[in-house]
Parts: sequence; structure tokens; C-alpha cells
Amino acid sequence: MTAPIDFYFDFSSPYGYFAATRIEALAARHGRSVQWHPMLLGVVFKTTGAQPLPLLPLKGPYSLRDFERTARLHDIAYRRPEKFPISTQLAARATIWVGQTYGAGKAAEFAKAVYRAYFAEGRDITDPDAVAGIAASLDIDGAALVDAAGSAPIKEQLKLDVEAAIQRGVFGSPFVLVDGEPFWGFDRFDQIEAWLKNGSI
Amino acid sequence: MTAPIDFYFDFSSPYGYFAATRIEALAARHGRSVQWHPMLLGVVFKTTGAQPLPLLPLKGPYSLRDFERTARLHDIAYRRPEKFPISTQLAARATIWVGQTYGAGKAAEFAKAVYRAYFAEGRDITDPDAVAGIAASLDIDGAALVDAAGSAPIKEQLKLDVEAAIQRGVFGSPFVLVDGEPFWGFDRFDQIEAWLKNGSI
Repeated sequence: MTAPIDFYFDFSSPYGYFAATRIEALAARHGRSVQWHPMLLGVVFKTTGAQPLPLLPLKGPYSLRDFERTARLHDIAYRRPEKFPISTQLAARATIWVGQTYGAGKAAEFAKAVYRAYFAEGRDITDPDAVAGIAASLDIDGAALVDAAGSAPIKEQLKLDVEAAIQRGVFGSPFVLVDGEPFWGFDRFDQIEAWLKNGSI
Repeated sequence: MTAPIDFYFDFSSPYGYFAATRIEALAARHGRSVQWHPMLLGVVFKTTGAQPLPLLPLKGPYSLRDFERTARLHDIAYRRPEKFPISTQLAARATIWVGQTYGAGKAAEFAKAVYRAYFAEGRDITDPDAVAGIAASLDIDGAALVDAAGSAPIKEQLKLDVEAAIQRGVFGSPFVLVDGEPFWGFDRFDQIEAWLKNGSI
């Protein structure tokens, strides 16, 4: 039996969304499962001094173009959100609570639905009503979820999770760890594939 | 007849080196030639506020690992240079002079040899003697090249070239423009391939 691979992502990251549509099939091709780790790039960027891509001179306009091109090349539904980037505490905390309450499989399903809502369906995932609605569509108790997402234990858990991610060297989204080997970016999925196949590159 | 594609690179960029080993074959598969544009990331970074990858927290150590992995995945000879990053004025100016004196084909040949010397053969391409030696191996007058690289007109030409690159939105290395469409990174060669094939993605 082999260990699951660790998938770190921020809900405001388009490349994280693209990766979320592919990571499970990639892992499954090599007999692996996926542990989903929502994190907050804003906190990570305080450590690294980085800034959100879209806010950078030259790189910002380019990245908006690259998001759309990447989505088309991989045939992933994508519509540039009106509000972008956004703060993703609510979505991340909600995912943690779904995992605690309904199990890891449901949390992954919820995370994918939240990503899709934001990056393909034009929905505002900073809005508790929207997030409760996504939950309800998956037979998750939306009201309980919104309550829990504002609770001290869940807030604390996300804080600990983000600190742990930084400790493991996570500095971007998506970020994948395979048996300790770090891969940053949707554009490293070819390297992940090679590594999963051969245990090295 | 179709226009050449524009290939921008800094001699201190490992991903630029990787790209330089593949760009001509990629272009040729689609009936294109390549215009080689040496540039200076240091100047570009003053505009964008970016910093050399290896100096960034977390991202720095990761990138050193990614350079080696990428080289192995694509079967490109690579040895991490002792001195890295370096200033690349000399190599860039020398390439401009080779282009003016021996033509664009020779300049491309020279650029590839300089990259290989730095990233595969452990040679110091900030050293005029080393650069003259690379030139001599290609039947280029090494002494004249070193003289010219220190001359006012060549310095001015590189300055103009870098300014023009920034004007065209170039912010990293490698950076490729195909009929005005910008692609940043060796990991966008799949997108360049798709674009060259279909004229869009």
C-alpha cells in the first residue's frame, strides 16, 4: 500500500482549480489517493514576500491570458470571475468542517464543487449563502456548515493547517507532495506523472 | 511565408537554457524560424519588482530542485553552476555583436554554446577569456568580440533591445512571442506547439 499524495490549494487560485479537476485521475492511474489541503496563499505570501499574480506589473495581464489559454488547452470549463482574487477563509474553513463531519471523500467533492462554482459558474464563494447552497446540493447541512466555519475551533484548525503547509515548504497553489517530493504548479503535472510512475525523475 | 517567432532569454536563466535547446526544432516543425533576443532580467525586474528565483524564501530551494528535475525529464545536460545567478551583460552584448558581424544564424549558434558552457560545462561566462574561447571554437574572432562587447554602440544596442522587450511585455526568461501572442516559461512549450499548429488555443 502506498501513501496518499498531498494536494495543497487556495480557492482563489485558477491553477489550483485546474489541478483540482485532474489530480484524482492522475493519482488513481498510479494507485494513489489524494489528501486535499485547503490553504491560504495570503498567509503564505506574508512569509515569502510574494504577491497575487494578477496584481503584478506585466505578469498580471499575462496571467489572465494564460488562465484562459490553459483552460482551453485542457478543456476545462473556466469563466474569469468578476471579483478576483478573493479571500478564501470561508471556503477553506468550510472544507475542513466537511472533512471532519462527513469524511475526506465528501470534503474533496465539496472542494471541487466550490472551485467550479467560483471559476466556471460565476458564483461568489465569499458569500455564506452561496457556500451553503453548494453544500446543500451535496446533501451537506449548509446552515451548520456556515455556523461551523465561523467557530473558533475551525478557525484555529485552518491556521494550524496553513502553518503546517508552510513548514513543509508549500509556497504556491497548486502544490503537490509525493512521498515528500514537492511539485509546484499545474504545469508540473507531467513531472508528477513521471515521479509516480518511476519514484524519481 | 510566416514570420519568425521571437525568443527572449537571459543567459543566467536555467529555463531559458532548456528552452534554447528546443526552440528551433519546435519552430521548424511548423515552418518557422527563430529570432534570438538576449535580454537582461535584472533590468526587467526593476520594472516588475520581481527578484531572481533562487533568492526567494521557499521558492529558491524549490527552484534549484526543479531545474535538475526538468533537465532530467527532458534529457538535457545540466550541472548547477557554482556562481549563480550571474550578471549576463558580457554574454548578451557578445551575442549582439556576433549577430551584427556574422549573421543571425551564427549568433544563435553562439548563444547555444554560451548557454551550454555555463549550464552544462561549468564554465564562467562572466569571464572575457572564457567567452572569447567559446567564440573561437565557432570560428568567431574572440579578441574582436571581447573588444566590441565593451564598446559604446553595443552597450547602447543591448539597452535598446531590453527596453524594446519590456515594451512588448517581456517579463521573464524564456519568453516567446508568436505573432504577438506571449508565452512565458519552458513549461509553456506545449501551448506554443498548440498555437503554432492551430493559430490559437
